[in-house]
Amino acid sequence: MRVDIWSDIACPWCYIGKARFEAGLAAFAQRNGNHDVEVVHRSFELDPKAPAATDLPVLDMLSAKYGVSRTQAEAMEARVADAAAGEGLDYRSDRIHGNTFDLHRLLHLAKAHVVQDALLGAFYRANFAEARPLADPAVLTGIAVAAGLPADEVARVLADPGAYAQEVRADERAAAELGATGVPFFVIDRKYGISGGQPAEVFRQALERAHADGAVRVLAAGEAEVCGDEGCAVPGA
Amino acid sequence: MRVDIWSDIACPWCYIGKARFEAGLAAFAQRNGNHDVEVVHRSFELDPKAPAATDLPVLDMLSAKYGVSRTQAEAMEARVADAAAGEGLDYRSDRIHGNTFDLHRLLHLAKAHVVQDALLGAFYRANFAEARPLADPAVLTGIAVAAGLPADEVARVLADPGAYAQEVRADERAAAELGATGVPFFVIDRKYGISGGQPAEVFRQALERAHADGAVRVLAAGEAEVCGDEGCAVPGA
Repeated sequence: MRVDIWSDIACPWCYIGKARFEAGLAAFAQRNGNHDVEVVHRSFELDPKAPAATDLPVLDMLSAKYGVSRTQAEAMEARVADAAAGEGLDYRSDRIHGNTFDLHRLLHLAKAHVVQDALLGAFYRANFAEARPLADPAVLTGIAVAAGLPADEVARVLADPGAYAQEVRADERAAAELGATGVPFFVIDRKYGISGGQPAEVFRQALERAHADGAVRVLAAGEAEVCGDEGCAVPGA
Repeated sequence: MRVDIWSDIACPWCYIGKARFEAGLAAFAQRNGNHDVEVVHRSFELDPKAPAATDLPVLDMLSAKYGVSRTQAEAMEARVADAAAGEGLDYRSDRIHGNTFDLHRLLHLAKAHVVQDALLGAFYRANFAEARPLADPAVLTGIAVAAGLPADEVARVLADPGAYAQEVRADERAAAELGATGVPFFVIDRKYGISGGQPAEVFRQALERAHADGAVRVLAAGEAEVCGDEGCAVPGA
């Protein structure tokens, strides 16, 4: 099975939803034995026009965006923090709002190195649990290298804005084609979609459902030109 | 969409089937516009017990395996060569029979570098069209580097028999779980299986079918905890 997850590092429900999905996946795996479930993280930018580097606190961004007071913005954040705490996740509201394009490009590099999930987890922790400035290239590089990426490749990707840019755009187009206007957005076996950071049980049930109808139907076999234990069939020979 | 293809470099119908599949995919793409079809090559060894290096001509292997004369083995090969010619592929019967485990390990390295399809094509050409000795590490390295792999990583994988060994075994287990006893074996969207180097039209139709029922059904949305253009929903807030 395969699960595609569209998310953004700046998205609190993606951070929380990742933990809920993983809990659902663990419950599914416990019931069904160790099934081969491949998770692929796909890019989605909530605010593609955000400046690359910024000192804008998220709380200021929120009060400007919603036209609410600082106190109201804090109350909104407190509700999200409660949800995070429910999953055992730290959540800081004194983090910085910024552009996530470079982070998504690095996540595609990480995919090639099979450390994508680790890097996304590290980005979430750095942003939400530690309020670290991800726009700082030194901070970003430190996190990427700690997650298992070669420092020279990280430097190359950060220096070239075109590196993995197509991959980020392709993910975003794919989300649009699926009708996903928000994140997190989960797609199981390219068949079942789940929008939002739903409870773990929703993910478990969706995985069960995809698993139940996951058997492969053989469309063509029979007189096949095929090689096997017994050698290679030469139909009509 | 995603197509998993189990094959072995030593398998003539895999070589021919790859060309037929690609023709079917091209016909599908022409009708449906440029769809995002990801092709993943999976490992399958027809003769895992073959010695690593060998001078055994395929024709001698065939006559021993089937208990036929050299002339009869040549006639069998001639029929396969005809099928290859039908796809515009060169086919030499004076090639060497050998073990393909190292080749599969390199194909997994190539997957990480996103040059897997190029490397598999190069292996097929070297074996079937050029009858080159793939058991020779210098030949193997030359092909792998020409396909885009870093020479130092190729050397590291060839020097360590454990490198990507688990990935090869996992692919073979997955084939067994699907009931595939021969190759090539194609699975579209983990749903439709096709055994053997079928005509291009069979692949086109199977792709159409998978495409037609490929729409994602959204299982859970509604009161979702989701972030979008308008910000992050806080249900119940």
